[in-house]
Amino acid sequence: MSSKIHIVAFSGSLRASSYNTASIEAASLVLPENCSLEILDISNLPLYNQEQDGANAPQEVISLAQKVVNADAILFATPEYNYSIPGVLKNAIDWLSRQQPQPFAGKPAAVMSASMSILGGARAQYHLRQIMIYLDVHFVNKPEVMIAGAHEKFSENGELTDELTRDFIQQLIESLVSWSIKLKS
Amino acid sequence: MSSKIHIVAFSGSLRASSYNTASIEAASLVLPENCSLEILDISNLPLYNQEQDGANAPQEVISLAQKVVNADAILFATPEYNYSIPGVLKNAIDWLSRQQPQPFAGKPAAVMSASMSILGGARAQYHLRQIMIYLDVHFVNKPEVMIAGAHEKFSENGELTDELTRDFIQQLIESLVSWSIKLKS
Amino acid sequence: MSSKIHIVAFSGSLRASSYNTASIEAASLVLPENCSLEILDISNLPLYNQEQDGANAPQEVISLAQKVVNADAILFATPEYNYSIPGVLKNAIDWLSRQQPQPFAGKPAAVMSASMSILGGARAQYHLRQIMIYLDVHFVNKPEVMIAGAHEKFSENGELTDELTRDFIQQLIESLVSWSIKLKS
Amino acid sequence: MSSKIHIVAFSGSLRASSYNTASIEAASLVLPENCSLEILDISNLPLYNQEQDGANAPQEVISLAQKVVNADAILFATPEYNYSIPGVLKNAIDWLSRQQPQPFAGKPAAVMSASMSILGGARAQYHLRQIMIYLDVHFVNKPEVMIAGAHEKFSENGELTDELTRDFIQQLIESLVSWSIKLKS
Repeated sequence: MSSKIHIVAFSGSLRASSYNTASIEAASLVLPENCSLEILDISNLPLYNQEQDGANAPQEVISLAQKVVNADAILFATPEYNYSIPGVLKNAIDWLSRQQPQPFAGKPAAVMSASMSILGGARAQYHLRQIMIYLDVHFVNKPEVMIAGAHEKFSENGELTDELTRDFIQQLIESLVSWSIKLKS
Repeated sequence: MSSKIHIVAFSGSLRASSYNTASIEAASLVLPENCSLEILDISNLPLYNQEQDGANAPQEVISLAQKVVNADAILFATPEYNYSIPGVLKNAIDWLSRQQPQPFAGKPAAVMSASMSILGGARAQYHLRQIMIYLDVHFVNKPEVMIAGAHEKFSENGELTDELTRDFIQQLIESLVSWSIKLKS
Repeated sequence: MSSKIHIVAFSGSLRASSYNTASIEAASLVLPENCSLEILDISNLPLYNQEQDGANAPQEVISLAQKVVNADAILFATPEYNYSIPGVLKNAIDWLSRQQPQPFAGKPAAVMSASMSILGGARAQYHLRQIMIYLDVHFVNKPEVMIAGAHEKFSENGELTDELTRDFIQQLIESLVSWSIKLKS
Repeated sequence: MSSKIHIVAFSGSLRASSYNTASIEAASLVLPENCSLEILDISNLPLYNQEQDGANAPQEVISLAQKVVNADAILFATPEYNYSIPGVLKNAIDWLSRQQPQPFAGKPAAVMSASMSILGGARAQYHLRQIMIYLDVHFVNKPEVMIAGAHEKFSENGELTDELTRDFIQQLIESLVSWSIKLKS
């Protein structure tokens, strides 16, 4: 079987200088061979309305769902807004969850979070894990990556400058890739 | 001191025939004397972007924040989407949380949920409670109102037909009003 | 590779007529071929004290840890006490988590709950899932088994009388066994 | 009305050199006038068994419940064991919750946690808050006190040496006392 792993990534922040988006970019620089990573755009989705489920959904939702269906694995980088994941990210998940086939079902996943605070976004990660139980996603348990004091770990142009954080992100990607290969078998 | 209590309400669903919106309408029919209730519109908010915090926020956010600041209490009626609150509701909370003064701070609140499923939206309520700790909201603990099998408890035009549910909603409103008066003192 | 799966089971209730213990007994009656199930005794553990970690732990803890280490999979049947798992069950988990090697690490697991209430113990399950992230346990996501109105689904002598519940328990065991085989590969 | 506030405190760790117990001792040194604090002993409770509810409970449970009933407020200092509260603490809560009158009902409360890790026990606090919703306890929201790197903040004999932590604990106690006076009114 091919061990090529295509990862799609969600950043929970729409901000241009988002540390979470920058974390995903850092992850893309430490991908194992034969892996690819694409960051998905969730900024163009309207607010979810159940009246537009399934085939009635906006084209952006249908296209996004296709990318998730075709992915081998999912990477989430989420800020913590008010002790949970951002509404922006949950809105994308809500839209996608109503597409057929349900695009997240059975997918391996990993989550990391970056925050200026010392908890590094931890609370959001546990809310995300609970959400994805319903959608039958299989998260790696370790490592858990909470990037605290993020403003001191990235340069002004969004480059990760902290070596320890880079190592953790690399371990997370490697963990996700091994996990994906195992679940595919 | 005046015991007039003005409640603002958030429904987590934008659907025209939403059971949660219908629950709020049912609540408005059982208000004690000297209480008023206004349901807030969160359908017109863009996706939250930190670049538009504070004074840069869209006018709809600024106006919404004003209504929350001026309220004596908050009522949430939330569906459960994917084991948490809808992204639409979280998006509104995220926008509001960044306004100054932080509009939720110190407010008494109550939460109920309606769902076709048998858990009646319970999981979403605990996520909401955790979110609002950060925003310094004081929820009543009881009664906990989870309206299960909602499709059998409302008529086609959104009228609550189930007496037991009406009683629970009334108890919740009375609990919220007493709690608000106590916290004001 | 041998596909024999040995499951160890934890009931969160020490009560002789526990519905959760009865659920495990029902599970033992629907095991696939080549599977075995042993219910573990957690009633004889003292209250956890960090001064007795590792090699200083009571013999009951050391023996229990050995059984978990040697298991291929873990089944939890937990009541919901005060919106979480019982202290009795958490106490056993706390003791075991401090043994070396950490006995839960990498194990596949499943959880079910039985309760007289209509939520069927759901809240406890999500707390247990969060706890076991730290201990690197891989839970199946589906089916989720919440046995509500348990007093009407078991006979006085603890026999499961409800067919639908028996089917769900069987699906859970089958899901756990397949998952265990996949993770072993 | 008397503004004398009697606080009972629970430490989730039975360890003699527990940082959480030491935090409660530090709290007792910064009590406002007219306040008193008693730390409760939960080390002598057997494992909870539903067969011993209510009047059948061990005398230690009945006495403990009386102390909680007579208290004006409750302070929890909890370690984080495996991403939740210790089984030892949950076991005490489970016993107490089954006494009549339910001793926690309506009580104001505060929670803090101490841990060697950088999250300072945060995860345990949110689990405790959810547990206590069912028991109708009203937690203060702020400040949230997570004492990280606790081993560097206490001396060998359990004295709090970190000034910032002492300030936070004092703020927490003051918040709890004001909250208790408000809820009494």
